Amino acid sequence: MLFSNDRQKITNKHREVIHEKIAVILSGCGVFDGSEIYESVLTLLRIEQQGSEYQCMAPDIEQLHVINHLNGEVVEGESRNVLVEAARLARGDIINLAEANSDDYAGLIIPGGFGAAKNLSDFAVNGAQSTINNQVKLFAQAMHHAGKPVGLICIAPTMTPLIFGEGATCTIGTDTDIAGTIETMGGSHQSCPVSEIVIDQERNIISTPAYMLAGSISEAASGINKLVDEVLQRA
Amino acid sequence: MLFSNDRQKITNKHREVIHEKIAVILSGCGVFDGSEIYESVLTLLRIEQQGSEYQCMAPDIEQLHVINHLNGEVVEGESRNVLVEAARLARGDIINLAEANSDDYAGLIIPGGFGAAKNLSDFAVNGAQSTINNQVKLFAQAMHHAGKPVGLICIAPTMTPLIFGEGATCTIGTDTDIAGTIETMGGSHQSCPVSEIVIDQERNIISTPAYMLAGSISEAASGINKLVDEVLQRA
Repeated sequence: MLFSNDRQKITNKHREVIHEKIAVILSGCGVFDGSEIYESVLTLLRIEQQGSEYQCMAPDIEQLHVINHLNGEVVEGESRNVLVEAARLARGDIINLAEANSDDYAGLIIPGGFGAAKNLSDFAVNGAQSTINNQVKLFAQAMHHAGKPVGLICIAPTMTPLIFGEGATCTIGTDTDIAGTIETMGGSHQSCPVSEIVIDQERNIISTPAYMLAGSISEAASGINKLVDEVLQRA
Repeated sequence: MLFSNDRQKITNKHREVIHEKIAVILSGCGVFDGSEIYESVLTLLRIEQQGSEYQCMAPDIEQLHVINHLNGEVVEGESRNVLVEAARLARGDIINLAEANSDDYAGLIIPGGFGAAKNLSDFAVNGAQSTINNQVKLFAQAMHHAGKPVGLICIAPTMTPLIFGEGATCTIGTDTDIAGTIETMGGSHQSCPVSEIVIDQERNIISTPAYMLAGSISEAASGINKLVDEVLQRA
């Protein structure tokens, strides 16, 4: 605990000179088949407003599918690439997750949107039997093993047991079905309102429900801002 | 002037009871072929944080083209629909501009991104000879003729002369080529830093450069927040 505090003080001091860079893993562009746009933009905005920097990254893989966001239907016969679509959310300033070096980053945040459960993992399809994209897993575990904080937003915390193993604590809000599935996978779920965060102190994992519960952008912002602040505090 | 002030007082009082709704016209989803995502989200966030409401809308037309935002190249043979892609930015909560009734809204804001100059108008292709989508023109003019404020962000102010006619004042920042083209089209351009807005008092038009000049999300936010506040003040 003392060590942790000391480390934070050193890190905070360090931040005055060199801005820490936070890795943000995106999963496409659009709530139903990629990254939730508002959650992603709120994350980037808060990182920047707190004086830190970010680097967006995404795996160079095909999306599970393309959803027409006007009518909610799957667009048959169309495929889109996660990295290419995520580049829209990053104004082109994005790197291939396969080429990202965890040593370059002080923390990791993964926004939600169904892309987190369709492209980064297959939770939306396979639930308790879901698996996670290997690049996402390796990068997140490398960050974790280096003692760096990992923030998971909205549906992204369903990857918690797959990344951090048995007993890791997270929240996806108050949905008992999804919470139960996380528990079945070995995770520990904690209910949480939209404006709050859940912290796994031991493992340095922070999560918030965002659009699992939010009815508006500012509601989503209330929890996301706290999550980003906590990640930066621990970075 | 007195009338204008009185009207504002009445409107502000009115706002305490019924939230005014601001129409936001989107042009797709992504800076290079649609609406600039950060500008759009910052606009929606500010409207909501100030206690008002918004309704996103877009024309049901094909995009000029699709740009791969990773490498900046046109994707040959692919077409996307402006309304369907804009629905990503609105989490599906969007209406067809053709079905929007200007009576339902107290103000209008059009975010930037190349979509404003490729899909809503063809300024990016035809410059001084550009024309504007008829639905956009009719809706914006209806708002204008009803005395309601219109806010234009980034490259969207290039539509100013096409909507409001000769002498209407706007800014796209400091780019002298584009400013000159706006003047050739009959508009009046005023240079403006990223953190400020230009107001055509007589015509109730507000504009800000945003990503014509911004180097970061928070720089874009500085001007966009002022623009939204000014539109709401006049709504």
